[in-house]
Amino acid sequence: MVTVNKNYLKLPGSYLFSTIAKKVAAYQEANPDVQIVRLGIGDVTQPLAPAIIDALHKSVDEMAHAETFHGYAPDLGYEFLRSAIAKNDYEARGCQISADEIFVSDGAKSDSGNIQEIFGTENKVAVCDPVYPVYVDTNVMAGRTGDYNKKNENFDGVIYMPCLESNGFLPELPVETPDLIYLCFPNNPSGAAITKDKLQEWVDYANENGSVIIYDAAYEAYITEENVPHSIYECEGARTCAIELRSFSKNAGFTGVRLGFTVVPKDLVREGVALHDLWARRHGTKFNGAPYIVQRAGEAVYSPEGKAQLKEQVAYYMRNAHTIYNGLKEAGYSVSGGVNAPYIWLKTPNNMSSWDFFDYLLENAHVVGTPGSGFGAHGEGFFRLTAFGSYENTQEALRRIKAL
Amino acid sequence: MVTVNKNYLKLPGSYLFSTIAKKVAAYQEANPDVQIVRLGIGDVTQPLAPAIIDALHKSVDEMAHAETFHGYAPDLGYEFLRSAIAKNDYEARGCQISADEIFVSDGAKSDSGNIQEIFGTENKVAVCDPVYPVYVDTNVMAGRTGDYNKKNENFDGVIYMPCLESNGFLPELPVETPDLIYLCFPNNPSGAAITKDKLQEWVDYANENGSVIIYDAAYEAYITEENVPHSIYECEGARTCAIELRSFSKNAGFTGVRLGFTVVPKDLVREGVALHDLWARRHGTKFNGAPYIVQRAGEAVYSPEGKAQLKEQVAYYMRNAHTIYNGLKEAGYSVSGGVNAPYIWLKTPNNMSSWDFFDYLLENAHVVGTPGSGFGAHGEGFFRLTAFGSYENTQEALRRIKAL
Repeated sequence: MVTVNKNYLKLPGSYLFSTIAKKVAAYQEANPDVQIVRLGIGDVTQPLAPAIIDALHKSVDEMAHAETFHGYAPDLGYEFLRSAIAKNDYEARGCQISADEIFVSDGAKSDSGNIQEIFGTENKVAVCDPVYPVYVDTNVMAGRTGDYNKKNENFDGVIYMPCLESNGFLPELPVETPDLIYLCFPNNPSGAAITKDKLQEWVDYANENGSVIIYDAAYEAYITEENVPHSIYECEGARTCAIELRSFSKNAGFTGVRLGFTVVPKDLVREGVALHDLWARRHGTKFNGAPYIVQRAGEAVYSPEGKAQLKEQVAYYMRNAHTIYNGLKEAGYSVSGGVNAPYIWLKTPNNMSSWDFFDYLLENAHVVGTPGSGFGAHGEGFFRLTAFGSYENTQEALRRIKAL
Repeated sequence: MVTVNKNYLKLPGSYLFSTIAKKVAAYQEANPDVQIVRLGIGDVTQPLAPAIIDALHKSVDEMAHAETFHGYAPDLGYEFLRSAIAKNDYEARGCQISADEIFVSDGAKSDSGNIQEIFGTENKVAVCDPVYPVYVDTNVMAGRTGDYNKKNENFDGVIYMPCLESNGFLPELPVETPDLIYLCFPNNPSGAAITKDKLQEWVDYANENGSVIIYDAAYEAYITEENVPHSIYECEGARTCAIELRSFSKNAGFTGVRLGFTVVPKDLVREGVALHDLWARRHGTKFNGAPYIVQRAGEAVYSPEGKAQLKEQVAYYMRNAHTIYNGLKEAGYSVSGGVNAPYIWLKTPNNMSSWDFFDYLLENAHVVGTPGSGFGAHGEGFFRLTAFGSYENTQEALRRIKAL
C-alpha cells in the first residue's frame, strides 16, 4: 500500500497569494464598478525589451530549420549564456566565478525550492522572519522541520531570525548555530538591503561554523547605493560557504519567460563532497535544460542594447518605488525599503493587523497590497507594496491612499 | 556543520550518455576524417513544424506590448493548453480526464524525477529492467533504496522486473508486491508496446494492492497498432491507481523547447489524502509555470495545421524506424521494437557485451548507438538504435551495418 509524504500535511492552509486573489475577486464581484489597483504580487507589467524580443524571434527562426534547430540543451546551460553571466555579473564586479560554476535553470523559484535536496535532512535551517515562503515550505516538505506551531505561527525546529524595525529589518547572528542559512538581499518582502561589511560578517560566521548560506540575489538590479553588494561573492571567503541564486524575472521582466541560475563554487565542500558535483547530478537527473530560445533571450539581456533598455525598465519601476515611498511618508506612514529594492514595507497605522489593513485598503482605497503576516509571524503589523505596476496606476494608488 | 545528502553518493559513475559522448569524441579526434552517424541519444533532428513556429512568433509579439504581455502563468498551466490536452489526448479517446487534473510542466524528465517526492520514503519501488535511468536515480536520491550492488549492477531494495526476449520485453507481475510501479509504454529503451488487455492487468493489480502506477506515455504518438493504448486511462479503474506523464518532446520535437504534463486524477487517494492536492502543492511551491510562449506553442500542437504537420513528422521518423528494423533483420540480427516506438532494440551478435558491440559498431561502421546494459543489468547483450536521425543518415548507417 502506497504511503504519502506526510511532511506535506504539515503545511497549513493555502498559499498567501491565492488567499489574496480570492478576497480581491470577491470584493470586485460585490463592487463591479470599482477600479482596483493591484500592488500586491511581485509580477512585472512592462513588456519585454526590444533586444529580447529580437533575440526570441531570431532563435525561433533557427528552430524552423534543420541546420539551425536545437534539441536538448547542455546540462548546465549553453556556454554562450553562462559566459555572458560569468563576465557581466561576476568578473565585472571583481568576483571569481567561472562559467562552469553557473547552472542555468527555469527560474529562481525552482532553484530556491530544489537546492535543499542536496543536503541531509538533519541540517538545521535558519530563515529571516518575515521571509519568502518557498524557503521554509520546501524544507518542511523534505522533513527538515517539525510540526507547524499554531500559537507561534511557525514551524518547530526552524531557526527564525526576526527582522524588525529595531534592527533595521536585518537579521542578527542567531543564538543557536544553523547549518543552512537562507538570506535574501535586497530583501523580499521588506526591501531592506545589506551592506558589504554586514554581509561579510555572515560569510565569516558561516565559514567559522561550517554552515552554508543560500543567498538569493533576485533583486540585485534594483540596488542604487554604493556600499550594497550585488553578489555575495563580493565578500571574501564566500566561495567556501555560499550558493547564490539569481533570477531574470525582475531585472529583465522574465516572470512569464522563465530563466534563472544558481552559482555553486567548486571550493564549496562539506564532508569531503563538492556541492558542485551534487547540484550537477541533481540538475542532470531531474531537469533537461531551459529552452534554447529562452537562453538566447537571456543572452540578449547582456548585449549593449539589452543593457541600455533594461536600465530604463528598472528605472521605470524605481520611479514607482519612489512614488510609493515618498507618498506614504507624506501621508504619515512609517516606511522602509524602496531604495535598493522594488518593495516598500510599511508599518500599519494604529496597530492594525496586516490583514485588517489589507481589508481597509481594499475597501477604502481599492488598492491591493500584501499583508506582512503572510511572510511570517514577525511580518505582523506590516504591509508590502510593490513597484511593479504601471506608473499611472501607482500614482493613482498613492493619490487614493493619501486621500484616506 | 552542514551535512550532504548521502543518498546521492550511492549513485555510481557518470550518466550513460556522457560516457558515450566521451567515447565518440575520443574516436572522432583519433579519426578526424571519419563521418560518424549518431543513432544513440533520443534527441530529435527535424525542425519545429510551421504551425508551432507561427505560434511562437505570435506569442513573442504579444510579450512586446504591455496590453498583451504575460507575466507569471497560472500554477497548473494556462487554461487554453489544459483544455486542448483534455479534449484531444483524453476526451477524444474516451478517457475521463478533466482539464484541472492536468499539470503543465517544463517536460517529462522533470516530472518523472519529481513525482516521487509526494510519496513516503518507505515505499517499495518497482521498475522494468532495462529502464530509463531517471526513475531509479531519483528514488535513490530520495533515500527510497539501499546501496548500489556492484555484483548485480542494481540497487538493493528496488524490485527489478526483467524485460527479456522470453517475455516479449514486457514485465511480469512481481513476486514481492511493490508500492510504486513505474511503467513506460511504448517502452524506452526496448520499443516494446503493451496491449490494452495486458495493461488492464496492471491496473487491476495496482487497485487490488493499493499500489500507484507512474505511467510514462512519452512515446504514445508512435503507436501504429489498434490494440495498443495511448493512455493508461483507457483502462478501467486507472483513475484510482495511476498517474500519467506526457511529453511534447517526441510527438512535436520539443526536446529543446521544454513542455510536458502530468495527469493526477482526483480519484487517486491514498491514506485519505488526494495525490492531486499533494502534486498541486509541489507544483505551486517549487515551480513557476512553463513559459507563456511555450504553452502557446503547445496549444498549436493541437490545431488542425499542427496535427497534420506533426503526423508527417512522426511518419518521417517511423520511416527511419522501419529502415533500421528491416535493415537489421536483413543483416541477420534479432530485432524488436520499431513498430509502435521510435526505438529499435537489437540483440548483439555472437554474445558480445553491449559495450563491446558499441565499440565494434563505432570502429567498423562509424555508427553510434546506446548499449543496452546502460539501462540496467538485463539490458546486457542488447543495443538501442533510435529513429530520430535524418532519413539520409539512417539509410547510410544501415548500409554500413549491412556491409559489415
